[in-house]
Amino acid sequence: MTVLEEVLSANDAYAAAFGDKSALALPPARGFAILTCMDARLDPAKYAGLSEGDAHVIRNAGGRASDDAIRSLVISYKLLGTREWFVIHHTNCGMEFFTDEVMRGLLANSLETAALGEAGFYDVGTGPGSAEAKYIDWLTISDQASSVLEDVERIKAHPLVPSGIPVYGFIYDVATGRLVEVPAATTAGSVR
Amino acid sequence: MTVLEEVLSANDAYAAAFGDKSALALPPARGFAILTCMDARLDPAKYAGLSEGDAHVIRNAGGRASDDAIRSLVISYKLLGTREWFVIHHTNCGMEFFTDEVMRGLLANSLETAALGEAGFYDVGTGPGSAEAKYIDWLTISDQASSVLEDVERIKAHPLVPSGIPVYGFIYDVATGRLVEVPAATTAGSVR
Repeated sequence: MTVLEEVLSANDAYAAAFGDKSALALPPARGFAILTCMDARLDPAKYAGLSEGDAHVIRNAGGRASDDAIRSLVISYKLLGTREWFVIHHTNCGMEFFTDEVMRGLLANSLETAALGEAGFYDVGTGPGSAEAKYIDWLTISDQASSVLEDVERIKAHPLVPSGIPVYGFIYDVATGRLVEVPAATTAGSVR
Repeated sequence: MTVLEEVLSANDAYAAAFGDKSALALPPARGFAILTCMDARLDPAKYAGLSEGDAHVIRNAGGRASDDAIRSLVISYKLLGTREWFVIHHTNCGMEFFTDEVMRGLLANSLETAALGEAGFYDVGTGPGSAEAKYIDWLTISDQASSVLEDVERIKAHPLVPSGIPVYGFIYDVATGRLVEVPAATTAGSVR
């Protein structure tokens, strides 16, 4: 089967056993939101115990507090009533293995997929590439604890975020499945 | 229990049964990515049949092809080898019930949570608000099929996206759990 056929086949089985989930309300029943990484190894519903209808889940490369993540979080509380947020980055994140300069160089050389070696990503493509990557901040990470704290602070300081919303910072350990809290007192360091 | 205690308790149980998932590789094993909405009723792992390690999942308010979603998709293929993408919006999306003007007015009036009535969201807060919402494009939706097609087209046309990556457009029906494909031939309409 192709990927498309596999996804549709899995969806057929899900829909066939959908049951009373059609009655779920639009606002998250448990009143919270999670911002986390797109990484394939992470399943926030499983690692945080979410059922359908419970909580908003926002995901991007790194789980970063990008402008778009903040757009989503503001909609989450202002229109749909969430009152607590989690920022969850993770160990062994792909965002640690490159810099803006590396990504821009790779994409300028070729749009084909790069390879990952001991020294980081290197290009195996032969073009065409694009200089467009220069205009994107890739939001890479050099230290997970610092990136979590930086993102928690950016969210808390945003003028559209009320001061009363708790924002918890965690690192998910891909080797154990465990969430490890990042204490707010840790000094932010070398986040790019 | 508080939300924080509930999440950590669920995570304890997940980590205790983590098994061999510590051996999962960083690149998605099944080589694809899903861009979908943060809506609490959607569980992409369940509705599309994903296990940990299978696929990247990117989520924001609406499942829109924002600049940040494109940042994530480009990282997904260029560094981590995904070769097929899904854009999945859904019925009864909160993004259909307001406009930029409404959101800006609500947030200018108060940062407290608004209520949802028959005519859409209305404010119950008494301030303080913020004019900052004027500087954000909230990426609202007036027609799901059009928003899916618009986002598929934006992704395909992006200079950092190779022409060979298939981008499938779907609407997830929250009443049935079923994915309904949006044919590329449908004429794009009144997406705001």
